[in-house]
Amino acid sequence: MIILMHPEATPVEIDNVIATVEARGWQTHCSSKSGQMVIGLQGEGQPIDPFHLGQMPGVLETMDISQKYKLGSRDFRPEDTTFTIGDVTIGSKQLAIIAGPCSVESREQLLETAHAVKEAGATFLRGGAFKPRSSPYSFQGLGEAGLKLLAEAREATGLPVVTEVMSPDRVPLVSIYADVLQIGARNMQNFDLLNAVGRSHKPVLLKRGMSATVEDLMMAAEYILAHGNSRIMLCERGIRTFDQKYTRNTFDVMAIPMLQEITHLPIIADPSHGIGVRRHVGAISLAAVAAGADGLIIEAHPNPDRALSDGDQSLTLEQFQTLMKQIKIVAETIGRSC
Amino acid sequence: MIILMHPEATPVEIDNVIATVEARGWQTHCSSKSGQMVIGLQGEGQPIDPFHLGQMPGVLETMDISQKYKLGSRDFRPEDTTFTIGDVTIGSKQLAIIAGPCSVESREQLLETAHAVKEAGATFLRGGAFKPRSSPYSFQGLGEAGLKLLAEAREATGLPVVTEVMSPDRVPLVSIYADVLQIGARNMQNFDLLNAVGRSHKPVLLKRGMSATVEDLMMAAEYILAHGNSRIMLCERGIRTFDQKYTRNTFDVMAIPMLQEITHLPIIADPSHGIGVRRHVGAISLAAVAAGADGLIIEAHPNPDRALSDGDQSLTLEQFQTLMKQIKIVAETIGRSC
Amino acid sequence: MIILMHPEATPVEIDNVIATVEARGWQTHCSSKSGQMVIGLQGEGQPIDPFHLGQMPGVLETMDISQKYKLGSRDFRPEDTTFTIGDVTIGSKQLAIIAGPCSVESREQLLETAHAVKEAGATFLRGGAFKPRSSPYSFQGLGEAGLKLLAEAREATGLPVVTEVMSPDRVPLVSIYADVLQIGARNMQNFDLLNAVGRSHKPVLLKRGMSATVEDLMMAAEYILAHGNSRIMLCERGIRTFDQKYTRNTFDVMAIPMLQEITHLPIIADPSHGIGVRRHVGAISLAAVAAGADGLIIEAHPNPDRALSDGDQSLTLEQFQTLMKQIKIVAETIGRSC
Amino acid sequence: MIILMHPEATPVEIDNVIATVEARGWQTHCSSKSGQMVIGLQGEGQPIDPFHLGQMPGVLETMDISQKYKLGSRDFRPEDTTFTIGDVTIGSKQLAIIAGPCSVESREQLLETAHAVKEAGATFLRGGAFKPRSSPYSFQGLGEAGLKLLAEAREATGLPVVTEVMSPDRVPLVSIYADVLQIGARNMQNFDLLNAVGRSHKPVLLKRGMSATVEDLMMAAEYILAHGNSRIMLCERGIRTFDQKYTRNTFDVMAIPMLQEITHLPIIADPSHGIGVRRHVGAISLAAVAAGADGLIIEAHPNPDRALSDGDQSLTLEQFQTLMKQIKIVAETIGRSC
Repeated sequence: MIILMHPEATPVEIDNVIATVEARGWQTHCSSKSGQMVIGLQGEGQPIDPFHLGQMPGVLETMDISQKYKLGSRDFRPEDTTFTIGDVTIGSKQLAIIAGPCSVESREQLLETAHAVKEAGATFLRGGAFKPRSSPYSFQGLGEAGLKLLAEAREATGLPVVTEVMSPDRVPLVSIYADVLQIGARNMQNFDLLNAVGRSHKPVLLKRGMSATVEDLMMAAEYILAHGNSRIMLCERGIRTFDQKYTRNTFDVMAIPMLQEITHLPIIADPSHGIGVRRHVGAISLAAVAAGADGLIIEAHPNPDRALSDGDQSLTLEQFQTLMKQIKIVAETIGRSC
Repeated sequence: MIILMHPEATPVEIDNVIATVEARGWQTHCSSKSGQMVIGLQGEGQPIDPFHLGQMPGVLETMDISQKYKLGSRDFRPEDTTFTIGDVTIGSKQLAIIAGPCSVESREQLLETAHAVKEAGATFLRGGAFKPRSSPYSFQGLGEAGLKLLAEAREATGLPVVTEVMSPDRVPLVSIYADVLQIGARNMQNFDLLNAVGRSHKPVLLKRGMSATVEDLMMAAEYILAHGNSRIMLCERGIRTFDQKYTRNTFDVMAIPMLQEITHLPIIADPSHGIGVRRHVGAISLAAVAAGADGLIIEAHPNPDRALSDGDQSLTLEQFQTLMKQIKIVAETIGRSC
Repeated sequence: MIILMHPEATPVEIDNVIATVEARGWQTHCSSKSGQMVIGLQGEGQPIDPFHLGQMPGVLETMDISQKYKLGSRDFRPEDTTFTIGDVTIGSKQLAIIAGPCSVESREQLLETAHAVKEAGATFLRGGAFKPRSSPYSFQGLGEAGLKLLAEAREATGLPVVTEVMSPDRVPLVSIYADVLQIGARNMQNFDLLNAVGRSHKPVLLKRGMSATVEDLMMAAEYILAHGNSRIMLCERGIRTFDQKYTRNTFDVMAIPMLQEITHLPIIADPSHGIGVRRHVGAISLAAVAAGADGLIIEAHPNPDRALSDGDQSLTLEQFQTLMKQIKIVAETIGRSC
Repeated sequence: MIILMHPEATPVEIDNVIATVEARGWQTHCSSKSGQMVIGLQGEGQPIDPFHLGQMPGVLETMDISQKYKLGSRDFRPEDTTFTIGDVTIGSKQLAIIAGPCSVESREQLLETAHAVKEAGATFLRGGAFKPRSSPYSFQGLGEAGLKLLAEAREATGLPVVTEVMSPDRVPLVSIYADVLQIGARNMQNFDLLNAVGRSHKPVLLKRGMSATVEDLMMAAEYILAHGNSRIMLCERGIRTFDQKYTRNTFDVMAIPMLQEITHLPIIADPSHGIGVRRHVGAISLAAVAAGADGLIIEAHPNPDRALSDGDQSLTLEQFQTLMKQIKIVAETIGRSC
């Protein structure tokens, strides 16, 4: 059960409600939503009469939510969550197009890419400064120097920056430079990190783990929401299945309409990681848009074959430009724009 | 290695070539392709000089094919395979739209559905007379009576009929009534059945098994091709993954462009089985078309909630009609029609 | 619901019960179990009062079974199913050890193997005469000639023969030579084949499909049971997962105790296919015995590196002999023998 | 390539070697192994002549390692890694038996459990103070208070303590109380955390991620090894597959012999998480020991049905006692003890 307090509820009223439910054996979990206190019940207490609770001073509404995730569900918030970053309203008719290199490698590489994707129609710049790599011997990113280059590219192009943060203690640093904090697939259940970005005031791009169910993804988002940060983009980026001969992952296109049904949060598709094969990124981008995605995150690089990471799945800048034209046409067909 | 003989090669010339390669320890496998004899080498013989072989009377060409599948690969046949059934050329710009109930249940149900899907723009009628069911206690189909109803519906609407055959000994019977023989996902590696439809002269719709890799699917098609039947539609219908909470299968949209790259055979998408959830069949249909599918196979029923099988994933006739309009718009966007 | 009739119930009594339940909209499914008629209800009829039904002449018992599988469940038959083939009682304290080559290749290869595995302690001879191969260009088995060699090896060693049957029309032929009909993993849901072996009077070794759940396996067994054949060994042989770098399949050791809890049928483990890597077959064999398997099926070959199929996972005859000694020790530890 | 320096190599000699390889375009990565400097080459430099390098002052040996993981491979260190904690040498003939509750819940619960598992033969106490939970509304552990209780239980019983650390900034705190730092499955690719425990001087229990391949696990261990910490126990704890009807995970028994072949690090099996079903933990424990595991980690609780986490998979203290007797018997059969 979740208890929504009046925006004007007093601290004493809130404390009374908490004391009442705790007296029946429940633990409580408080967060605020647009200035309202939300009290979530957890654990295994005795049954509580919602009518009685609804009569207590300061209580606006009680909700009986049976799903494991609460704040992220359509039950809790039927209308779409939208939020504006730079010129783009995420979750609106306009698709968010996030493009850029896998890793920030150099000033030249980044600026050339940023200008090119901007011109082609991208509305965000992506680029990794801290890179999660399977091998300790692989390039691990430029660190803060990479963040500074991203900020410089934002200055030069006006594109807001999406970049990954890998540990809770780096959230303050990355937040100085980034417009959107990205949580990578391998960290989807790094709960201390989810708590840290939940407490920050930055929008979050949360990638689905490679073996996470749609429900697991919703539970991860719930950690962020429970700390009061609701500016979250969920990101489908391919799951791990038995078929890995030709592709790195299996892009779960079905997750897009499924998530849009169960949550109010916007959904971004990552075809680059979703399949890991450059020459089919275009087909999967169009499929994701046709399935209803609110945006795309695509890797592009001036010279993918010499990229320090993920070159196999990065588009050339020319390929990205061509793809953007196709995306616009398909988007308009279904009543969206980009 | 594969040896292509001249169309006018004599039986003696063919025998000489076979004797030569068998003398070096290879087994041979013969099939005919548009009137030409194709000799495939199998087993582990001694190396053969392709130049020497190419000089033998009657030999047109030798091909060294390293993939496990040969006749189905783009290496063997670079141009798309197309073939015409009724008014539709499969593999052309025009999408093949196969629609109808999961199972043939009654004359009324089938005819109502057939007329409705035809009017909405479908070009084939689907319907199961022999049904593979997980449980022996579930409805197993009407058998030959169902086939007769399908033939009647074809007479009434002009739509060619696609229906499943489950065992080799029933191929002759089903071939009397069907225009296309469907091999179900559970039978994708029923090799005696593949051999039997390979020897028939009917086009085949071959569904990908639920844990079959793209390569496994190609190998299954190779069984049919090796018997001289190249009128095959491959069908992506969802694979089994760890996420089954909200969907029956995971539709592998990436298989569509991947298959189009590696094989000349046309690719059909089955969003109904691919996800198993009626209300998202539309989104996945559009995604499959945007990804480049050559056609769709969709379950539709006058009253899905009372269907004897697969009701959860069948569209109502009205839903199918609405979806067809959306499909046409997306198809035209990418230069196709339906 | 399932209705068990008295062993002495008359045909008229049986017909009356059937007529009664069909009058309420149910379909019926009859099979016989140790001389008793078993009437299963299927479809969606009106509720039936089990008390009323239990009063009808000839009715022994009614059972309300909620699981999808009925005849195979412990609810239906709490005690273990055991049956004797040759000198071995399957499902008893004595482990069934089935060993031999993947494919019958020649008289010498088969007889050498049969004598060696017998001497090492095997109680059954395995060997494929009809081989399901992914590629049409691979060795497909010796066919009936292979069956004749198996029969000859049985004469020579006294070992009963386990061999695969791949299509319904070959069940009579294979039954002439085999003591146990094997259904391969790819055919686990070849329902016409399951029906055919269900109608035969031969014991069946039913392999789990590579993406079949434990419940799917039980449903496949139910097809055989529903035709009156209850001499079934279930076989865990590895499932397909995301990890295929080092192993062919993932051996699901947990399926062994799980199946023993939910079904009365005996469980055989196939470590050879379960992992596909010769040098670890021993460790997995011991693990399967420790987990409670009722037997093992192991591939052994005089010269695995020259085997026409599955050489990578076949033990040498010496390795098999050594392994048998270890198996005996672990088996005795947990109160079993072999 | 990896360069092993002499134990007496001087800083100048080391710097010369580094300068030489960096001059050819390689990045270097240094760690120390039993007092010897190990220089790993990474990136894509020009070829280096190992003979020439071997002649440089201070160089002991060069190794060309083609696997992605180096320090963890048998190529790098053929003999088993063993290390002693308390009275137990991990990786020796004696099995490590780690037992205790999923979460530390109270002083009474923990002490009762610790005494009971010690008496039954356990050699380590497990218990979670910081708990990674899918839901933010579930019990998250007692935190430092839980660590203090663990330290108290160690005082009382002499059992060394294994407990999880979830973020890099908590490594110092947890290290104060723990004898072994556990990295949970969800954090297997939390690279900042791996780096942090690599830099600590505590032994590490590294759990395999739920969709991690065996190679992924080795790469994660490589992060820890590369920081000079080689006291690592790898832990198989079940993987996520398509079959989740009856079990939480699929225990990959094959990973045990496979890991023992490719790495010198000891392997622990976690049957509790591996299957998630209390009544089959025993069978899987015996199977893991028979397959060659170097130890087991098992959840036990005085009253599993009232546990705050993982009650479904925790043994009662009596069940654990009974299981230990069976484990001893199977262990002795294969030449081990516990």
